[in-house]
Amino acid sequence: MKKQAVIVGYGGMGAWHHKALQEIGKIDVIGIYDIREEVFEKAAKQNLTIFQNFQAVLESSAEIIIIATPNDSHKDYCISALEAGKHVVCEKPVTLSVKDLEEIIAVSQNSAGIFTVHQNRRWDTDFRIVQKILSENIIDTPYFIESRVNGSSVFLHGWRDFKVNGGGMLYDWGVHLIDQLLLLTPAKVTSVTAHVKSVFSEEVDDNVKLLLGFSDGLSVLVEIATNCFIPFPRWHLSGKAGTAIIDNWEGEGKIIQLLEGSNPTWSNEIVYTAAGPTRTMAPRAKKTVQEVPLPMVEKYDKGFQHNFYSAEHFYSNLVDAINGKEEQFVKEDQILRVLKVIEAAFESAEIQDRILCTI
Amino acid sequence: MKKQAVIVGYGGMGAWHHKALQEIGKIDVIGIYDIREEVFEKAAKQNLTIFQNFQAVLESSAEIIIIATPNDSHKDYCISALEAGKHVVCEKPVTLSVKDLEEIIAVSQNSAGIFTVHQNRRWDTDFRIVQKILSENIIDTPYFIESRVNGSSVFLHGWRDFKVNGGGMLYDWGVHLIDQLLLLTPAKVTSVTAHVKSVFSEEVDDNVKLLLGFSDGLSVLVEIATNCFIPFPRWHLSGKAGTAIIDNWEGEGKIIQLLEGSNPTWSNEIVYTAAGPTRTMAPRAKKTVQEVPLPMVEKYDKGFQHNFYSAEHFYSNLVDAINGKEEQFVKEDQILRVLKVIEAAFESAEIQDRILCTI
Repeated sequence: MKKQAVIVGYGGMGAWHHKALQEIGKIDVIGIYDIREEVFEKAAKQNLTIFQNFQAVLESSAEIIIIATPNDSHKDYCISALEAGKHVVCEKPVTLSVKDLEEIIAVSQNSAGIFTVHQNRRWDTDFRIVQKILSENIIDTPYFIESRVNGSSVFLHGWRDFKVNGGGMLYDWGVHLIDQLLLLTPAKVTSVTAHVKSVFSEEVDDNVKLLLGFSDGLSVLVEIATNCFIPFPRWHLSGKAGTAIIDNWEGEGKIIQLLEGSNPTWSNEIVYTAAGPTRTMAPRAKKTVQEVPLPMVEKYDKGFQHNFYSAEHFYSNLVDAINGKEEQFVKEDQILRVLKVIEAAFESAEIQDRILCTI
Repeated sequence: MKKQAVIVGYGGMGAWHHKALQEIGKIDVIGIYDIREEVFEKAAKQNLTIFQNFQAVLESSAEIIIIATPNDSHKDYCISALEAGKHVVCEKPVTLSVKDLEEIIAVSQNSAGIFTVHQNRRWDTDFRIVQKILSENIIDTPYFIESRVNGSSVFLHGWRDFKVNGGGMLYDWGVHLIDQLLLLTPAKVTSVTAHVKSVFSEEVDDNVKLLLGFSDGLSVLVEIATNCFIPFPRWHLSGKAGTAIIDNWEGEGKIIQLLEGSNPTWSNEIVYTAAGPTRTMAPRAKKTVQEVPLPMVEKYDKGFQHNFYSAEHFYSNLVDAINGKEEQFVKEDQILRVLKVIEAAFESAEIQDRILCTI
C-alpha cells in the first residue's frame, strides 16, 4: 500500500510537493493544513482533506508530514510531528538557529520517525557535473571554487523579504549552495567570511558574498545576488591541472587544460599587451592548451524540463529509508553543518562591523 | 634643459623605463647601475654610462634615480638617494614591509627630493572606465566590485618566484589592484580577508583571493591567478542601479540596467527552470532591461598599442612636480596605504591557519 502524507503549508512549495508526489506515485497526499483560508478552495479542488488544526494532522492516518510553511514556524511542527511518531520532510532551512535545529534532532533521535530536509538541489545537473569533475580528478584537487547564483529579481517575494519569517538569501539559496559544497569535500570548514548586503530589502540579506576556507586548503567563494544583470557562470573551478566552468543550470560549460609538454618558456622580454607591460599575465598561445568536454551525468529521463527529477530521487529514497532498505539521503548531521556555516556567516557579518582597522 | 636620470637595475622594467623616457623626451637617461655584468653590453650599446657603484650614481649629475631592482633591495637605494638630495622613482611595491616604507618616507620628508612609486596602472583603460562609471554615478554607488587579473603563465618568472626577493603575486599585481581600488572610494578599508595559495611556487603566493570591506559598505573581491585557463572579466561592478562589466584590458564591456517602470511583478506561481523550481532566480524578461555603452575615456593618442601612454603621464607629472608646478601624482600616503593592505592580507592568511572552527 502507498504511504500517505499531509502537507503543512499549501503555498508555492507545498503545492510543488503535491504535484511532485502525484507525478511520482509512491506517496498519496491525503490532505493539507494551512492557516490561510484562501488556499482551501484550491486544495478542495484537488480532493484534499483540509485539516482544521495541526492536532488533527497528527491524528490522521498519514505516516509522513511535509512541512512547507515559512521558516520561522518549522520547529514546532517538526517536533510535534516527530513526537507523534510521524516521518518529517521539512523545507529548508528547517530553523533559523543551530540551537533550534539541535532540539529537533534530539527529539528525532528518540522517535520512530525519520527527520529529513528537502535539499532538492543535490540533484541539479550543474552540481552533479561538478561532483563528477572532482570525483574523477579531472583537474586535480581544486584550490578555488566559485559557486554563484546571480539573479535579477531585484526584490524578494512575500515572506522571503521579512526577518521574522526567516527571509533573506542566506536562508533561501545559501542553504542549498552550502549544502552542495559540503558534499564536495570531506574537509571541515575552517573559516567563514561574509559580506552581507541589504540592497533593496529593508530587513533581510538580498546580496551576499561568502568566502569559505576548508581544512584541506580549498577556498570557496559563494555569491547569491538578486540585483545582478550580468551574471557570472554558475561554477568556476581551479585545479592544479586545469580550469572548469559550468555556465548555467543546464550544465553547459567546458574544461581547459595545459597541453602536455606545453609548459611556458619565459622570454626575458616583457610582453606588451593592451594593459601595458606584463610578463606573468601575457596571453597564452592557444596551441598550448586543450579544451576537454565536461563529464556526462544522468539527465532527466522524462525530457529536459522534467520538473520532478529531484523529487523522484528524494521521495524514492524516503520510502526506501522508511522501509529500512536504504539510508536517508539528507542526513541530520549534514543539515546541522549547513546551518552552522550560515550561523557563522551571520556572525561574521556582525563582527566585521565591530573589528575596525584604519588603513 | 632636460632633467637627467640614472636607472638602477637594468632588467625588464629598467629597460622599459629607458625606452619610455627615450620616447617621451622629457628626461635624459645618462647611465645605469647594475650588479649583473651581463647587462653592461646592452647598456653600452645604448650609449649609457655604466656606473661602477651606487656612490658614483649619487655623485653624478642626475637629479632623478629610477630604481628597478628586485623588491628586497629597494629600501637602501631609496634612502641613500633621498639623503643625497635626488628625486626617486621606485618600482612597486617599494618595500616588503610597512616599517621599511615608513623609514623611507621619514627620510623623504626631510629631504629635498621627491619620492614616488611607479604605479603605472592608474592609466590603464579598463581602470579609467571604472573610475568614470563611478564618478558619473551611472550604476549608483557600487556595493560589490570584483577586480581580477586571471593569467595562465602557471609558473612565475625569475626573482618573482623567490621569497627573499619579494616575489609573489600580492607584491606584483596586488600592489596595482589595491592601489586602483583605493582611488575609487574615499572610504577606509575596514576588513581584509586573504586566501593565499602557492599552487606551483615553492616559496611565494601565485594564486590569491582577497575580500576587502570598506567603511562605506563597499565589498571588493580581488583575484590574482596565474593558473586560470578560463578567465573572469577584468571588472564586475554591482550598483543599486545596474551592473557593469569590463571584460578586458582593452576596455570592452557593457552596462545593463533595469528599464524604468520594469520593476518585477511577482506571480504566486513558482517558475520552472532547468534548475527546478525557483522564483527569485527565474530569468528576467529581456524587454525589462536595457544595455548602456561604457563611458568613453581618453584613448592612447599614438594608436591603440602605444606602450608608453602611462609613462608619458607619469613622467610629465614628475617633471612638473619637481618644478613645483603640480602635485606629485603617486603620493606617499597612498603608497603607504597600499602596503598596509598587503601586510594585512599576509597577516590574514597566517591567522586563518590558526583560528580553527570545526563545523
